[in-house]
Amino acid sequence: MSTDTARERLVIIGGDATGMSAASQARRLKGPDDLEIVAFERGRFTSYSACGIPYWVGGQVAERDELIARTPEEHRARDIDLRTRTEVTEIDVAGRRVHARDLDGDKAGYWTSYDKLVIATGARPVRPDLPGIDAPGVHGVQTLGDGQALLDTLRATEGRHAVVVGAGYIGVEMAEALIHRGYEVTVVNRGAEPMSTLDADMGRLVHEAMSGMGITMVDDAEVTKILTGDDGRARAVATDDAEYPADVVVLGIGVRPETTLAREAGLPLGASGGLLTDRSMRVRGYDDIWSGGDCVEVLDLVSGSERHIALGTHANKHGQIIGSNVGGDYATFPGVVGTAVSKVCDLEIARTGLREKDARRAGLQFVTVTIESTSRAGYYPGAALMTVKMLAERRTGRLLGVQIVGREGAAKRVDVAAVALTAGMTVDQMTALDLGYAPPFSPVWDPVLVAARKAVAAVRAG
Amino acid sequence: MSTDTARERLVIIGGDATGMSAASQARRLKGPDDLEIVAFERGRFTSYSACGIPYWVGGQVAERDELIARTPEEHRARDIDLRTRTEVTEIDVAGRRVHARDLDGDKAGYWTSYDKLVIATGARPVRPDLPGIDAPGVHGVQTLGDGQALLDTLRATEGRHAVVVGAGYIGVEMAEALIHRGYEVTVVNRGAEPMSTLDADMGRLVHEAMSGMGITMVDDAEVTKILTGDDGRARAVATDDAEYPADVVVLGIGVRPETTLAREAGLPLGASGGLLTDRSMRVRGYDDIWSGGDCVEVLDLVSGSERHIALGTHANKHGQIIGSNVGGDYATFPGVVGTAVSKVCDLEIARTGLREKDARRAGLQFVTVTIESTSRAGYYPGAALMTVKMLAERRTGRLLGVQIVGREGAAKRVDVAAVALTAGMTVDQMTALDLGYAPPFSPVWDPVLVAARKAVAAVRAG
Repeated sequence: MSTDTARERLVIIGGDATGMSAASQARRLKGPDDLEIVAFERGRFTSYSACGIPYWVGGQVAERDELIARTPEEHRARDIDLRTRTEVTEIDVAGRRVHARDLDGDKAGYWTSYDKLVIATGARPVRPDLPGIDAPGVHGVQTLGDGQALLDTLRATEGRHAVVVGAGYIGVEMAEALIHRGYEVTVVNRGAEPMSTLDADMGRLVHEAMSGMGITMVDDAEVTKILTGDDGRARAVATDDAEYPADVVVLGIGVRPETTLAREAGLPLGASGGLLTDRSMRVRGYDDIWSGGDCVEVLDLVSGSERHIALGTHANKHGQIIGSNVGGDYATFPGVVGTAVSKVCDLEIARTGLREKDARRAGLQFVTVTIESTSRAGYYPGAALMTVKMLAERRTGRLLGVQIVGREGAAKRVDVAAVALTAGMTVDQMTALDLGYAPPFSPVWDPVLVAARKAVAAVRAG
Repeated sequence: MSTDTARERLVIIGGDATGMSAASQARRLKGPDDLEIVAFERGRFTSYSACGIPYWVGGQVAERDELIARTPEEHRARDIDLRTRTEVTEIDVAGRRVHARDLDGDKAGYWTSYDKLVIATGARPVRPDLPGIDAPGVHGVQTLGDGQALLDTLRATEGRHAVVVGAGYIGVEMAEALIHRGYEVTVVNRGAEPMSTLDADMGRLVHEAMSGMGITMVDDAEVTKILTGDDGRARAVATDDAEYPADVVVLGIGVRPETTLAREAGLPLGASGGLLTDRSMRVRGYDDIWSGGDCVEVLDLVSGSERHIALGTHANKHGQIIGSNVGGDYATFPGVVGTAVSKVCDLEIARTGLREKDARRAGLQFVTVTIESTSRAGYYPGAALMTVKMLAERRTGRLLGVQIVGREGAAKRVDVAAVALTAGMTVDQMTALDLGYAPPFSPVWDPVLVAARKAVAAVRAG
């Protein structure tokens, strides 16, 4: 307890989705007479949609500020003591205090005590230690500042070659953004196919579709260095056996949990480096420390083990739950099933549950089926092909995962599988699902049900 | 058993979705040496999408034949003895035979014996007994023949006024079709609002949107007669207190189970006149008679009682299940949750589960919430408003129903609720659902989850 007996102090490290959702929800539940809220944010911005950055870079979103859900001033108006441009440098768990430093002020910094602490430090992008990686023209796209810097480079660059390193969600979305900006885009990818969150056979469909859009897809390639010109700027990306001209290089390799502070404080981390929490999003073994969002591991309800998933929708849910618990209410996070959707131009990509290798790793035996169907009745204008792959457990027929690659109307169909996974349904039960049918929206058998029917047969055969 | 000991005869009455799906599936399981299949169809066509007729009339589907999934010739090529233009006039249950008559041939007809019988007689449109109802220019839209007749009228008519009687799915879809054909459309509707499958507050949104499209919406109005001109053709639709000019009148009042034969044969019918079946789609109390599709009642899994729903997707599932059982395999139909989706131009309408009055009738106490959200992240181009209404059971918080009215990307979101209803989820459980999120596809909180969150609060308060 703080010395001020009646009033508790909640300290939050990180002013983005999780941190400020937690602050807002706690404030809804407790007024400033009962709860003081101090939030530290290293950057200038709060509560913004990092997921929106590719669309801002691509030009579909005109202004940076459209990505900001709530400004620092709006948070402060709700009695949240938000300190931007302030970095927390240490957590003293035994002393219940954090050390912070105003990045524009006194270097020595200061200690702030807490009764309750929320660690919402998010993720940091993977930035391989390559020659040339820090050259002008090489950009990450993690923060609004990164996005602005990339846009500045695009405006200043006359050359029209762009290389995206990495072919996960960020990579493929940035490929689209650069196409919108008129670049000739090459995507260099370490994996056998793009979108390693899919099985390779489905990733192949993404490869083919992206090639069809005029994107040069380079798989199975390790970037060895960024070549620079006489002006010191990036001019090409080199792999083991080739060079790709690059007036701009975008790093979209993925992110890791930003848990340096937590690790130094001795807090429990999982295999992927994310904080481990209980169901209430409290750090395991610590009564007064919560964490959520991109810096934690979450329980995968299908495999039964923890994994790291950086996704705004989870970060927001975690913040909401933490704020409820910190504010004296009660809420829990049951876990995830691993749903993700993305698009590259008109190509839609979705997945939920386990890939083949996830299922194997979880000790599950399974059957797989892949079907082709359409987004609407075949005779209805705009009916677009989609491929649905489904994994079901051997013997039991329990749904294990779904992957979808298609065009308009494909991606969000994965939600049906996400709910079915959450409910532990078998593919047999799924065949009877009462999904919305009308010719503009679906064939008479929804593609997910077509896959389920085929999976039932595979389970029986297998 | 038939006198031919080894070979059974399956007789099917009705050659559309249920009947021919059953025939196809049975044929997949048993060859012609083991199973003879005789199917009677009154019309000329088989296995067509009646749901597609509005889009054919509207011109989005160019040719009638696009709506035909499988022609009579294709069925016959698979050893199905399909007899089109042949009407079954009697079922002799005790004698295990049906009486049929070739509509173009001998009036006396003939008896055909069966070992197994499938009744797939579908539905017939409600056609009120009004003065002028049979005048030229007044059209139903139940069959391909109806659609062709309506198209012929549209081509021959110079006037540009159309009146649609009824504002359910068929009515609103026909309103769209007639707009596409350049008509000034009036929709006359007996209910307080259009789309009585929604609660009135959601129906109001449909009314407003359709009015905004230039459609004249007349609610709370009973049609009293069709006025005809000197040429005997329809010229206006009269209600108690007004007349609406009509060069063409489309009846879209709804359908009833076509169970005349079944009733005369003493088979069990439910409150809405549909046949009652067991889980295997066998007519209750009859070992060798199956039925499905638009002529049966189905179990509503949410209310626990039977209801009649005429919908192609159920009809196809029933046919598949019947064919499996008749063919010696095993399949069951657990019931429905009442999902339906539709559109009028760019307006999307969806519902699943119970309306307020359904819940009351089922003896359930409930809370309702209504929220507005968008189909994509608010900053993403094309983000469209949608309204989501949710019903949850008082105390338990079990989801009871969802209704959605919006624009692009609204309708199929109802599938999430359909699966959650099937799984018996509470709204609290729904708030944690791991639905696909990316800015082009959803706000960071999917609209269905926003509604669930608000419903959780309402359950706690109520």
